[in-house]
Amino acid sequence: MPHSNTKADEIIQYMLKAVRHCQVLNIQLISTDNGMLTLELPYSNSIVGNPDTGVIHGGALTTLMDTCCGFVMPICQEGSFFGPTLDLRIDYMTAAQPGKSVFSRSEIYRVTDNVIFSKGIAYQDDIAKPIAHCVATFMRMDTDASKSKTKGTPDEH
Amino acid sequence: MPHSNTKADEIIQYMLKAVRHCQVLNIQLISTDNGMLTLELPYSNSIVGNPDTGVIHGGALTTLMDTCCGFVMPICQEGSFFGPTLDLRIDYMTAAQPGKSVFSRSEIYRVTDNVIFSKGIAYQDDIAKPIAHCVATFMRMDTDASKSKTKGTPDEH
Amino acid sequence: MPHSNTKADEIIQYMLKAVRHCQVLNIQLISTDNGMLTLELPYSNSIVGNPDTGVIHGGALTTLMDTCCGFVMPICQEGSFFGPTLDLRIDYMTAAQPGKSVFSRSEIYRVTDNVIFSKGIAYQDDIAKPIAHCVATFMRMDTDASKSKTKGTPDEH
Amino acid sequence: MPHSNTKADEIIQYMLKAVRHCQVLNIQLISTDNGMLTLELPYSNSIVGNPDTGVIHGGALTTLMDTCCGFVMPICQEGSFFGPTLDLRIDYMTAAQPGKSVFSRSEIYRVTDNVIFSKGIAYQDDIAKPIAHCVATFMRMDTDASKSKTKGTPDEH
Repeated sequence: MPHSNTKADEIIQYMLKAVRHCQVLNIQLISTDNGMLTLELPYSNSIVGNPDTGVIHGGALTTLMDTCCGFVMPICQEGSFFGPTLDLRIDYMTAAQPGKSVFSRSEIYRVTDNVIFSKGIAYQDDIAKPIAHCVATFMRMDTDASKSKTKGTPDEH
Repeated sequence: MPHSNTKADEIIQYMLKAVRHCQVLNIQLISTDNGMLTLELPYSNSIVGNPDTGVIHGGALTTLMDTCCGFVMPICQEGSFFGPTLDLRIDYMTAAQPGKSVFSRSEIYRVTDNVIFSKGIAYQDDIAKPIAHCVATFMRMDTDASKSKTKGTPDEH
Repeated sequence: MPHSNTKADEIIQYMLKAVRHCQVLNIQLISTDNGMLTLELPYSNSIVGNPDTGVIHGGALTTLMDTCCGFVMPICQEGSFFGPTLDLRIDYMTAAQPGKSVFSRSEIYRVTDNVIFSKGIAYQDDIAKPIAHCVATFMRMDTDASKSKTKGTPDEH
Repeated sequence: MPHSNTKADEIIQYMLKAVRHCQVLNIQLISTDNGMLTLELPYSNSIVGNPDTGVIHGGALTTLMDTCCGFVMPICQEGSFFGPTLDLRIDYMTAAQPGKSVFSRSEIYRVTDNVIFSKGIAYQDDIAKPIAHCVATFMRMDTDASKSKTKGTPDEH
């Protein structure tokens, strides 16, 4: 997938490597285009929760969506990094089909001086039929440079 | 910690071993007493999200609470097992202190024929000052034996 | 807007009249087509929360979405009625514009023997740009007739 | 109930009168002590959702908790007022008993420059056995005076 946002890509790749349970789940970066982060959770036997049905363990999907909503910040806000999670909600619409990757896509929908609100979906074949919705808020952490840049900017709402 | 509920203990130990990201996070069983499940997430450098402050990565806490709320079922409902997560919400009250274990305690507050509602907290020194609250619902999976046993029982509400 | 689902319409109209704070907010039925319930909250000075900006009080939007998610049941499940709310989550994406109606649309995405899961959005000009998302679960109440009809049907998930 | 925080009381009384669906539900101020707001929803036939059981309509409880979490701000942050709701979650633990008032108590657990996080419970006889939990976030609105006073103060987290 050739795309140009290479600096954001580098940061995401670095973060995915730094967080060990992302490594364990083998979460992959797909895209950082258009202010949205897309990740992939490849199907594997090690994440199966129910051996009889082959359905993925719920915790793996939770981790995928939590990661996707938390990692989208540096894509949208240059110089901003993900701080502590303040709250997280995931609603599962339907079960994931066994044998297929699950993708997640996230974006930021509100930024204040100290809090970032992001939302995301998980899907398999069709992004228009999400298997889960996620909404999360995080403390905003900035480098000094970016903080002075955004100071005085009114919050979007 | 000597306690008698050994069958529930065995099931939880088995599930913790079966879920690989619980192994990676080194999540430990503390207790299955009084219908409540208590787990421990030991502090370690591998789960630090911010090297400057030593604060644990939010995803590790999310996984701890998701696991604790999802695993409590067999303790309360003999013959019932955790099915797919239907929804999950976590609210962080305060940041976890670096260098210390985080504990989570969960219990079930409502059971219907097909859905189980559980809630939990995460804490460090003082269980009365939780660092996070969690509420989750799961599909209920039963062995045939337990299904027939509970059939006809009115839902608690 | 002429549409044929007149029995569902009658039930919704009856429920809107029976719930007094729906009357106070002047919530109107727009449509019960395609298994979805669409309601309207007309703009009026009596629901303005901030007189300086003319922005609607948040509680009015919460009531609109709570009502819309709770009332959709009889449209989708003949003989089923809305029972007690089990949980409710609303996420506001952006502020409502003053001087315009707010619409809400809800549908059911999962039904078990005892629990109904519904979700909805609120919007003004463009349904593709919702001002809020809502997810809610309710206890399912059935007439005896419908209960026997659905008995044995596997839960959708 | 004699208590001293009369200025906060006056503000809450004013807000309860200004919001018409609080008037319709007859929501009463009980206390603004210790940084917590306690409100009462008196039982009456007009808020019964199910005439057969006498159980209160879920929407009335939702409005009570939404109001309680949204109105607590001026008690804790002098010069701060409640802005638009950003998100709201309510989890019902058990059904309210008919014929009795429902009380709600709320407090603020996190304040940033622009966002206020509050949480609350609803209860009847025993505050230790809540019938519902609520968590909500709101945009923070300040008078100029209070804004300059808190400027530079690090966010609590």
